[in-house]
Amino acid sequence: MSEVEVKKLQDSLQDRLAQVVELLQRQKAVEDLTLRQDGQQQDRAETQVPRQNLSELQRKLDDLHSADIAYILEALPLEDRLTVWQLVKAERDGDILLEVSDAVRQNLIADMDDHEILAAAKDMDADELADLAPELPRDVVHELMESLDAQQRERVRSALSYEEDQVGALMDFEMVTLREDVTLEVVLRYLRRLRELPSHTDKVFVIDQEGVLKGVLPIKRLLVNDPDKQVAEVMANDPVTFHPDGDAYEAAQAFERYDLISAPVVDKNNRLIGRLTIDEIVDLIREESESEVLNMAGLREEEDIFASVWRSLRNRWSWLAVNLVTAFVASRVIGLFEDSIAHLVALAALMPIVAGIGGNSGNQTITMIVRAMALDQVGPGSTKRLMRKELGVAVLNGLIWGGVIGVVAWLLYNSWSLGVVMTAAMTLNLILAALMGVLIPMTLARFGRDPAMGSSVMITAMTDSGGFFIFLGLATLFLM
Amino acid sequence: MSEVEVKKLQDSLQDRLAQVVELLQRQKAVEDLTLRQDGQQQDRAETQVPRQNLSELQRKLDDLHSADIAYILEALPLEDRLTVWQLVKAERDGDILLEVSDAVRQNLIADMDDHEILAAAKDMDADELADLAPELPRDVVHELMESLDAQQRERVRSALSYEEDQVGALMDFEMVTLREDVTLEVVLRYLRRLRELPSHTDKVFVIDQEGVLKGVLPIKRLLVNDPDKQVAEVMANDPVTFHPDGDAYEAAQAFERYDLISAPVVDKNNRLIGRLTIDEIVDLIREESESEVLNMAGLREEEDIFASVWRSLRNRWSWLAVNLVTAFVASRVIGLFEDSIAHLVALAALMPIVAGIGGNSGNQTITMIVRAMALDQVGPGSTKRLMRKELGVAVLNGLIWGGVIGVVAWLLYNSWSLGVVMTAAMTLNLILAALMGVLIPMTLARFGRDPAMGSSVMITAMTDSGGFFIFLGLATLFLM
Repeated sequence: MSEVEVKKLQDSLQDRLAQVVELLQRQKAVEDLTLRQDGQQQDRAETQVPRQNLSELQRKLDDLHSADIAYILEALPLEDRLTVWQLVKAERDGDILLEVSDAVRQNLIADMDDHEILAAAKDMDADELADLAPELPRDVVHELMESLDAQQRERVRSALSYEEDQVGALMDFEMVTLREDVTLEVVLRYLRRLRELPSHTDKVFVIDQEGVLKGVLPIKRLLVNDPDKQVAEVMANDPVTFHPDGDAYEAAQAFERYDLISAPVVDKNNRLIGRLTIDEIVDLIREESESEVLNMAGLREEEDIFASVWRSLRNRWSWLAVNLVTAFVASRVIGLFEDSIAHLVALAALMPIVAGIGGNSGNQTITMIVRAMALDQVGPGSTKRLMRKELGVAVLNGLIWGGVIGVVAWLLYNSWSLGVVMTAAMTLNLILAALMGVLIPMTLARFGRDPAMGSSVMITAMTDSGGFFIFLGLATLFLM
Repeated sequence: MSEVEVKKLQDSLQDRLAQVVELLQRQKAVEDLTLRQDGQQQDRAETQVPRQNLSELQRKLDDLHSADIAYILEALPLEDRLTVWQLVKAERDGDILLEVSDAVRQNLIADMDDHEILAAAKDMDADELADLAPELPRDVVHELMESLDAQQRERVRSALSYEEDQVGALMDFEMVTLREDVTLEVVLRYLRRLRELPSHTDKVFVIDQEGVLKGVLPIKRLLVNDPDKQVAEVMANDPVTFHPDGDAYEAAQAFERYDLISAPVVDKNNRLIGRLTIDEIVDLIREESESEVLNMAGLREEEDIFASVWRSLRNRWSWLAVNLVTAFVASRVIGLFEDSIAHLVALAALMPIVAGIGGNSGNQTITMIVRAMALDQVGPGSTKRLMRKELGVAVLNGLIWGGVIGVVAWLLYNSWSLGVVMTAAMTLNLILAALMGVLIPMTLARFGRDPAMGSSVMITAMTDSGGFFIFLGLATLFLM
């Protein structure tokens, strides 16, 4: 896609969104009024609705960067979103589709006919087509592929063949390549002839006749070195490279650590096949952290906040169902001790404290561990050490806060033995929470699952059932 | 700081960490052995411990990029961390200190004497010094400031005067500036004379005699345009700029949206004062998402996973204490209904299901909303619409899952009226969860607080106390 010049940020995006919303509302008010005045008329379609608000809106949209329009589309409810989408100039459709989130993209594409989709996609690069393809109707994809030349088609196929979390799915093919035996003067003239350089070109790639990567020539070195020097003298021989089947998150960490802007992707024979750029990496980092947050809360995927009730239900049901089962188990644990509760009703009032504090503390532990694992900081052999630390925290918290609550329970129910049981149960449940907070994410990771996956639901399940069992069990043993 | 050439990633960081850990362990084994053999000797200090493992470790460290050493330091427990830190060449101390997290930085600095700190800091740029200064001993900062020239000192002061979440705290001062009335040929010659360009130089800044920003000249345009053209003809006149007192997170969003690599920072009179670069932005995005995760779990700040038990306790206590109070409130709510529970013990077993499902569902809602707010997607006037959607989801979930649990309760306790109360209570508590899931983050935001701030603890508090009250209240009304 061609690059759009970035306009100055005169007003914040929030302001612009407010302006769009206001114009949409004014338009709706006018429509309502017009339709009401012409209420007698049978055929509403014939009613002429003034469109001056829409024209003003269209002018506003024309001034905005595609990324800003994408942002506005994301923030609008479905109906308004489609109104705005229809006002956007057709030639910008492609850029905007590439910017919006998957959920919104589906909305927008559902509103386009095949002809519009083809027009929007026709100027896209291979990697952009590959991003879009999974959302497009099958026959549109087929037609698009037909229209490409052999190299482009091959690139789209190859990009589509990688998993979402592989480097290959992130790479693009907009590379400037050179030979090592030319002078910088020649390179400068060659670049000038290209008329335009790909975005994020901070280095050009040096390859041999077989396409094997020999090194990279950072633009900075090209600029500061004597033009008579050869590329081979100036280039970096041993650059950071990536493999298309490598892990995308590891690539992102390398970009962060080494402050990269672009990097070559090579195959097993070190042949250059593509390029990674920081913009894709930034998007990946953002998505990764979002899915971490969502997964911990037991949400399956990114949910458009204006998604229909039905979509939201489906997104949330799986973990709610799990939670229902675990809550039922906890309930049955209590059921085991109904005699004790009938005998001493105070137990019913105190047991949620034991479970609640355990859940809260367990969630703190698991959040810490999941984060450290995401940053690859949980090295070999550190499990035992982590466990020791978390257990230390748990015992201290249990004795201190459990002690406080124990005293309160003693004063409230005038029974010191109930207070002692309370303190003991809290300490034991906090220890359980610490153990599970370390073990759950580590076990998930060992089985190749995302350690954040519903970890919050699981730890709460453990500390609920465990807490009830410990507290009611101790009470039955010592107080009955 | 000078740039270190990035070495090829022959083996993954995890592997390197494993190698470091192994060498440390071998060294420890050797030390133990030597000390045991020389057990008779009184003065342990005189014992000669073979250091070949440490020398090998030192060689390994010399080969690593500073960022990789920083990573290894983060992943090591305190004692090993300091052993490795002492092996690192002094001239790399500065680079590494800038890479590690705040918690680890404090560790490392505590291990250095003033002389070492001064040596590490002497080559730093003003923005780097400003990053480090808050962690340094006061007299060291004083001495450092003394050693700077007036301009540098002014820059450090100015960088220190901004809040962490302001653009000014992120900017650096490594700018290449030009006049607009020279040709590109002259620019190329000028750059060549600089010998080295600052990192992340994808554009140079065009200013007038007063230092007012006239535009930016992207390096890409410099390379592809005719060298006889004037800068003024080729430059972008209306670039995205930032103000030093602007919000850093908004700047990060602009970088993401417009795929920026660097951007000028200007004062109110449009005078160029600094520069933002994507590497700082990437770090900010990472930190922002981390603090979102931590805040939701009620952790105050980033916690070094190998922090002492005492540090961890302090980090986690504030929210645990809040949770203790809310759990106590929930317990008192149950206390209100002790007579009903004594009368029908099944209530004690069923009540955690009502509370638990409410908490889970409320956490899902609040996670969605907090995320959407972080992305600025909750625009003016969308509260009502969001509320409607979340209430719809809540009512459906309540009727369906509440219905299932109601039937189970009926079968289990052979009382259809208990089942009906159960279903009604679950539906009402899910509605409460949806309302609070929307209102809590919005209210926090209205009062200028972080909407993620302990939101999980708060929603759970609401759905616990609320769930117990609703369920036991309904039971008391209809079943007693």
